[in-house]
Amino acid sequence: MNFRETLKINEKKHLEICNHDCVELAKKFGTPLYVLDEVNIRKISSAFKNTMEKEYGKGGVAYASKAFCAEAIYKIISSEGLFTDVVSGGEIYTAIKAGFDTSKMYFHGNNKTENELLYAVKNNIGTIVVDSLHEMTLIENICLKLNKKQNVLLRINPGVEAHTHHYVQTAKIDSKFGMLISNGDALTGIKKLLNSKNIIFNGLHCHIGSQIFDKNAFTAAIDVVTDFVKKCNIENIKINELNFGGGFGIYYTEEDPKFTCEDYCGYVAHIARCLSEAVERKGIEKPFLMIEPGRAIVGESGLTLYTAGTIKDIKNIRKYVCIDGGMFDNPRYALYKSKYEIVNASKADKNADEIVTIAGKCCESGDLIAENIKLPKNTESGDIIAVLSTGAYNYSMASNYNRNLIPPTVLVNKKCADYIVKPQSYEDLVRNDNIPDWIK
Amino acid sequence: MNFRETLKINEKKHLEICNHDCVELAKKFGTPLYVLDEVNIRKISSAFKNTMEKEYGKGGVAYASKAFCAEAIYKIISSEGLFTDVVSGGEIYTAIKAGFDTSKMYFHGNNKTENELLYAVKNNIGTIVVDSLHEMTLIENICLKLNKKQNVLLRINPGVEAHTHHYVQTAKIDSKFGMLISNGDALTGIKKLLNSKNIIFNGLHCHIGSQIFDKNAFTAAIDVVTDFVKKCNIENIKINELNFGGGFGIYYTEEDPKFTCEDYCGYVAHIARCLSEAVERKGIEKPFLMIEPGRAIVGESGLTLYTAGTIKDIKNIRKYVCIDGGMFDNPRYALYKSKYEIVNASKADKNADEIVTIAGKCCESGDLIAENIKLPKNTESGDIIAVLSTGAYNYSMASNYNRNLIPPTVLVNKKCADYIVKPQSYEDLVRNDNIPDWIK
Repeated sequence: MNFRETLKINEKKHLEICNHDCVELAKKFGTPLYVLDEVNIRKISSAFKNTMEKEYGKGGVAYASKAFCAEAIYKIISSEGLFTDVVSGGEIYTAIKAGFDTSKMYFHGNNKTENELLYAVKNNIGTIVVDSLHEMTLIENICLKLNKKQNVLLRINPGVEAHTHHYVQTAKIDSKFGMLISNGDALTGIKKLLNSKNIIFNGLHCHIGSQIFDKNAFTAAIDVVTDFVKKCNIENIKINELNFGGGFGIYYTEEDPKFTCEDYCGYVAHIARCLSEAVERKGIEKPFLMIEPGRAIVGESGLTLYTAGTIKDIKNIRKYVCIDGGMFDNPRYALYKSKYEIVNASKADKNADEIVTIAGKCCESGDLIAENIKLPKNTESGDIIAVLSTGAYNYSMASNYNRNLIPPTVLVNKKCADYIVKPQSYEDLVRNDNIPDWIK
Repeated sequence: MNFRETLKINEKKHLEICNHDCVELAKKFGTPLYVLDEVNIRKISSAFKNTMEKEYGKGGVAYASKAFCAEAIYKIISSEGLFTDVVSGGEIYTAIKAGFDTSKMYFHGNNKTENELLYAVKNNIGTIVVDSLHEMTLIENICLKLNKKQNVLLRINPGVEAHTHHYVQTAKIDSKFGMLISNGDALTGIKKLLNSKNIIFNGLHCHIGSQIFDKNAFTAAIDVVTDFVKKCNIENIKINELNFGGGFGIYYTEEDPKFTCEDYCGYVAHIARCLSEAVERKGIEKPFLMIEPGRAIVGESGLTLYTAGTIKDIKNIRKYVCIDGGMFDNPRYALYKSKYEIVNASKADKNADEIVTIAGKCCESGDLIAENIKLPKNTESGDIIAVLSTGAYNYSMASNYNRNLIPPTVLVNKKCADYIVKPQSYEDLVRNDNIPDWIK
């Protein structure tokens, strides 16, 4: 295993994150436990912002909060000068609760409800990223009713799709998101927006995928989108802002490229340079540039700590190391067969020399976290098991499946460690339960 | 589509469940909305129990609460005289809160934590289904400390695995659950249990899969298990109880066999007769027989109501009907590509003549509920869309992904409709959020 920059093995031979012994964290806060490294989150956030300023100038970085959403994260990214991308009324509510400036929010989604749009307009959300003709009508009606103007981008589908290590460009992308450039839908959409009295059309948004490692996918998207901008200009339509979304690949296992903070910034620099070059070459006005990384900011900043319980060695078949978590706190293996690096945090110096399968505690055969990974041979019940790169899409996708409790999240920096999401209680599970009179 | 016994089309041409117009339910309680039919739950529960009594005698039916867990469901199944199967401290807590008799509980799981076992023993859980040697030690120590005796079954792995429409029998089943008969692990386990001073070994449990349609899988399991019982008897080990778990297949789409309540009871009758025949033939004492259906009781009793929002017709590519729910309230398509029958409840009389894809509202391309199903051509925004057979493993697997709210559940009978799980609020989302002093 390649140890991340943020991790080390301490003198007790334990895994350490940001000066905190993982075994001690587990003892103090219990397991399962999500841990987030504030120092790394800030380091990447500010590096992204600085790269944007240095390489492009008039642009911004919006944290995609669906990767990890809690009040504290908005405090951190707000203090780093980032914007945020929100995808539901619940995310808007959480951000507002944390005091996040609503004018710095981008509201996304293929099917925002009328109530969510009303909530967004009322709260002066900076930009709504409009996804469909239907939504334009809803927003216009809401604005008319509230006598307000609303800034929007149109989500377009450039026909470029990134598939992790490569990309495809096609005129027929099949997506629930956005409006296609190639068949004229996008232009129709823009014209409808321009005809809407209370909607201020400001530019375009696209998002071409997740876990993208091939920067050429962004080059291709920028090329298609700037061609489209030129076409709009010819029709006297001004595009003030281009938002290329996120999707920057992060390091999960040795199958992925290993990144330093500078490597991550390479994505931003690449997009900045490509866009600068394209607008100059095509003679279009330099737009405001926005990007929306989520996973790249919090993914590698997080890990999850579990306690090993039952270890079941079925001779000649498989050795299961069962942990006190599972698909309820990390459904990504069950959903996508996502791979993770896993460390015995109690014996971090020991050679990982035995093939095991990490199983969760849910009553479901598919509840595994990793198959055929290596742990030290002397891994035993009670050891603390760390699953790495779980900062993104773990807590945010967690459920109470099997009525297991969603683990708390602890934020660490060089000196402190404290909850940013406190433990659930059994009372939380039944808080909304109701027994109708007739079955009492 | 084959309409279920529990559903009909009313004079308004709306879908109706148990005398309740689905469009009216949606108007009154909002969408997305889980609806559960109490009449059908009671009908199947009591039919299972009666079949067990009639066909076998000394046996019982335990509701597998992981299918749908809330206080109200325990009230219902308790009043029908059922036992219950619980898989976590959270389920035990919920059942106790509902006043469920703890002596009628079976506690399952491949990796119950020490705290959960302590909680179970303290609360006099009727039976713990022990899964591993590790767990035996934990239980024995807890019992010693509390000076209590604990009744247990041993979960064994009979090497029979059902795969929906067929089954396989192998000596090498790879499972995180239970102890293998074939390699001697099960017998070792029993001997350890018999040597534990405070553990009362009562019998065996096995569970061979989910969505089983081939009754021969149960025949095979019963044959293997009763052979093992005979082997135990020879070693003077008495087996008082056999628990064959659940896994009875239910109707989701036309690809599945269509079942009446009597057909469902066929599973129970089959197991009862096979076991009666086997014990007689093999000359072993007739054990107490337990079965544990979950999905079969609540699955077809439930449906989910959504409102159609954006309808995106990408010509020659795909028509998306976007709903106000998605993988956060029903992750089964994302997880297993599970198929569902889907009805436009507002236009239930109309011919379903257009192929569409039902997309959720999450910011994730994979957030679909069904691909290439048929809805009426004139389906429009605002229509109520009903997804059928969602009573099991929908609410129980729901998450706040994208910070969407988990839908409430309404219980209906011929006369009444009321919440059994009330709506979440945005406040619920941040209830456990904490902002450490140093980032305030």
